[in-house]
Amino acid sequence: MKFYDCQPAPSPRRVRIFIAEKGLSDKIETVQIDLRSGAHLTPEFERINPFRTVPALELDDGTCISESIACCRYLEAAFPEPALMGRTPKEQAVIAMWEHRCEWDGFIAGSELLRNTAAGFKDRALTGPRDHGQIAELAGRGRRRLAWFHDFLDQRLAECAYVGGDAYSVADITALISVDFAARQKVAIPETHANLLRWHAQVSARPSAKL
Amino acid sequence: MKFYDCQPAPSPRRVRIFIAEKGLSDKIETVQIDLRSGAHLTPEFERINPFRTVPALELDDGTCISESIACCRYLEAAFPEPALMGRTPKEQAVIAMWEHRCEWDGFIAGSELLRNTAAGFKDRALTGPRDHGQIAELAGRGRRRLAWFHDFLDQRLAECAYVGGDAYSVADITALISVDFAARQKVAIPETHANLLRWHAQVSARPSAKL
Repeated sequence: MKFYDCQPAPSPRRVRIFIAEKGLSDKIETVQIDLRSGAHLTPEFERINPFRTVPALELDDGTCISESIACCRYLEAAFPEPALMGRTPKEQAVIAMWEHRCEWDGFIAGSELLRNTAAGFKDRALTGPRDHGQIAELAGRGRRRLAWFHDFLDQRLAECAYVGGDAYSVADITALISVDFAARQKVAIPETHANLLRWHAQVSARPSAKL
Repeated sequence: MKFYDCQPAPSPRRVRIFIAEKGLSDKIETVQIDLRSGAHLTPEFERINPFRTVPALELDDGTCISESIACCRYLEAAFPEPALMGRTPKEQAVIAMWEHRCEWDGFIAGSELLRNTAAGFKDRALTGPRDHGQIAELAGRGRRRLAWFHDFLDQRLAECAYVGGDAYSVADITALISVDFAARQKVAIPETHANLLRWHAQVSARPSAKL
């Protein structure tokens, strides 16, 4: 199995952290795809992943798994311990709910902000092979969504140790990469959000978060 | 368990079809939430689902599961047969990949088109409790994304009987509700897309698709 990664990008970091939490970092070959130079848009990479996105996992039979949550699903099913996507039906569903919610209002909102303002993303406002022009209003919307994301995470973390419940899970991973992605764009956790700050310090101290 | 549904909306239809495919339609109480009259924005519904979206499942212990894919995950784990999210790690991952891809380029693209043009969605360009103004350029982007969605689904269905592989799965459900949602907005499957048309006729003939 190979893991197609891109070190500075938030989305592959989701899978990189997931791999580390499974204790698999030394067991899966990692290939860096330099998104800035367009390495994902080459015919060579298209043969591996027709959607031309990272992260992606290439299985030993040549099957390519793209989409972060699908990469995590493969790893969870193939390497069940430690469980990062819940055990009981309720745990699995609560974690999936928070993971998806954090992706949408955290990661996607952050992408709206970055990709519709940064000069380097001109005509690249969405990932993948197609050109999409920047829409200035989307950046403002992304910023407002991130403020709400911080608000509801802070409320959630007043009730629970972790985003998905009592145990660390993939919901924490998606929340962490989204919070850090927002911070890189100067949308920091407000100082009033003590629960979110407590959680962020805690999950950031895990060795996986350094990756 | 209760299922909070809204009959005309595409997103709850994902879970409604999933429930039907599991043979559970008669076993789960369904509550219609009238999105048009704002029934999801009432304090009563906020107590059930703080994110104020449908679909949602309310478990017998009061836990609310929102987000379509999380509702499906609960049902898959609690009622494993027939499997709709794959059995082997590879099947699970391939289905999750296509499901997520269809959500993003099908359902979300369709939402971009509808919610940024229809008068009924003024200031409601995103689901949930927050106001977001319409952005006219997003509607055009949604339309272009839907054309590409039809293209890649047609290619995929040249290789496989179903979106997720050899068997019907949740990836077909998300693809179907997205294709039908686009068609309601006059973005129909192009006549040249024979594979996609064949699949659409086939999955639309299942009793679950009438719901």
